[in-house]
Amino acid sequence: MTAALLTCDWGSTHLRAWTFDRQGREVARQDFDLGVNRLKPGEAGDRFLNEVRPALGAEGLPALLCGGVGSNIGWQAVPYVDCPADLPAIAAGLVSPAENVWIAPGIRCESLSPAGDVLRGEETQALGWLSADPARQAGRYLLCQPGTHAKWLVIEDGRIVRFLSAFTGELFAVLSAHSILRSDGKVHDEAVFAEGLDAAAEGDGLLNRIYSARSRVAGRGADQVSTGSYLSGLLIGSEVAATPRLLGLEGAPVVLLGAPALCARYATALARRGVETSHADGDDAVKSGLMALARIRGMI
Amino acid sequence: MTAALLTCDWGSTHLRAWTFDRQGREVARQDFDLGVNRLKPGEAGDRFLNEVRPALGAEGLPALLCGGVGSNIGWQAVPYVDCPADLPAIAAGLVSPAENVWIAPGIRCESLSPAGDVLRGEETQALGWLSADPARQAGRYLLCQPGTHAKWLVIEDGRIVRFLSAFTGELFAVLSAHSILRSDGKVHDEAVFAEGLDAAAEGDGLLNRIYSARSRVAGRGADQVSTGSYLSGLLIGSEVAATPRLLGLEGAPVVLLGAPALCARYATALARRGVETSHADGDDAVKSGLMALARIRGMI
Repeated sequence: MTAALLTCDWGSTHLRAWTFDRQGREVARQDFDLGVNRLKPGEAGDRFLNEVRPALGAEGLPALLCGGVGSNIGWQAVPYVDCPADLPAIAAGLVSPAENVWIAPGIRCESLSPAGDVLRGEETQALGWLSADPARQAGRYLLCQPGTHAKWLVIEDGRIVRFLSAFTGELFAVLSAHSILRSDGKVHDEAVFAEGLDAAAEGDGLLNRIYSARSRVAGRGADQVSTGSYLSGLLIGSEVAATPRLLGLEGAPVVLLGAPALCARYATALARRGVETSHADGDDAVKSGLMALARIRGMI
Repeated sequence: MTAALLTCDWGSTHLRAWTFDRQGREVARQDFDLGVNRLKPGEAGDRFLNEVRPALGAEGLPALLCGGVGSNIGWQAVPYVDCPADLPAIAAGLVSPAENVWIAPGIRCESLSPAGDVLRGEETQALGWLSADPARQAGRYLLCQPGTHAKWLVIEDGRIVRFLSAFTGELFAVLSAHSILRSDGKVHDEAVFAEGLDAAAEGDGLLNRIYSARSRVAGRGADQVSTGSYLSGLLIGSEVAATPRLLGLEGAPVVLLGAPALCARYATALARRGVETSHADGDDAVKSGLMALARIRGMI
């Protein structure tokens, strides 16, 4: 197989790169510790040219990137596309920061406050999942993409019509590392996780409920090492209780798109609320999305 | 005036000490950077004997302490008193970790989850406020004590009958220091604070709403330096929307007890919800509470 296209999902913490041949078969893959949060201003282009391209033997190939690399802390700020957004709209918004390189735009929508809501990268993953099966082109889907900032997308007849972010992953990380609720979180205890899910209730009063992670230790003698599992349940439980309701889709089946271990926790949390879930692999989906965008733009 | 009693409000981040004469008049005050979060295990007693007592010329005086010094990371773990709790109940729970030293217990109550809720120090402040005016001995009051972990106390006829903590202050601190929402937070912008209050709405969906502090910068071009004021409004707004409702006291007047600048922000947030507030000084209240406990126990 001869590589014909280089693609990257270049987010805030990681860069995952793949090459594909003309038939869309994966030729090579490599991960880089080059998340845009770690880059110095102006550094992205050089690192891409001098590290990413050579590592995959992709010096001369057309390259398509998605994710935070298109933000103001990435390579070049690519304007957001407004919802509703489909693959052709994303493809039309590609920006070329250098010869033979294109970056996909993120998307933006109205939301709970005048601040609106934004995402970069998840649109390509979600639309890739959609493009992987023609049957998905019609009808409504609620997708959840867990992560540092979880994204909940409503897809109708092939278009992302609206979405809602949740700060859950980052909040868990900063509380576990820097607060009185710190714990290494390495051991996942399903029973304690379920305690946290129960404590989340309907997701209201979260500032009050978070404190229960402290009072179960201080007042009830729970072991501090279990705080991570409790907090994980409390936060994921709050997210899955509130977000579908705020999107007007309480009780609708949810497609979980992402890493299996984290998606499994969301599936547990949603099942406790009587919500059906299915799981799709996040890497497969983003690769499908990148290939679909490349084909629309005639890059391959 | 001759000092007859040494008292300390010894919390997680600070130690404030006062001496009083037999008539209850303040003789001296000094603050120490000896919060129990910063102490090594077993260190509290020595630091108290060798630093606090001499600094106030209080080597031989009876000493009464309240706050986190009575927790498992303080000097000695003093068992919680269960709600309802009044001054005599707190006084009966005093524990003496060393000669001529007593530590007041915290209190515990049932709450939103089986974890219950706990506090240490705020009970002495609240009951001190109550004891400062005989008219307050009857009737119901809703007290809010903003801080690292804000406490909302329901007081009926001189007793704390229940309370609810909120993680607001610590959450603001860790997000401002360690997350994508970081900002130095030194400049308080009232207009942006009000934006955050509006974005808090009824306090539901907080994980989603927190992300709006990011999207207003990434998607709407707001300056990152304003994120602190926005986040402050969003979190305080969420707290004041949810907590009284969860206590069954939505719309009830609130007595704000604490530092003027922070209480002023809570007053603004509550006023936007049509809630009347009054303000009382936290230092005065805790001194009254410590003196009242000392008198009940015959220490002075």
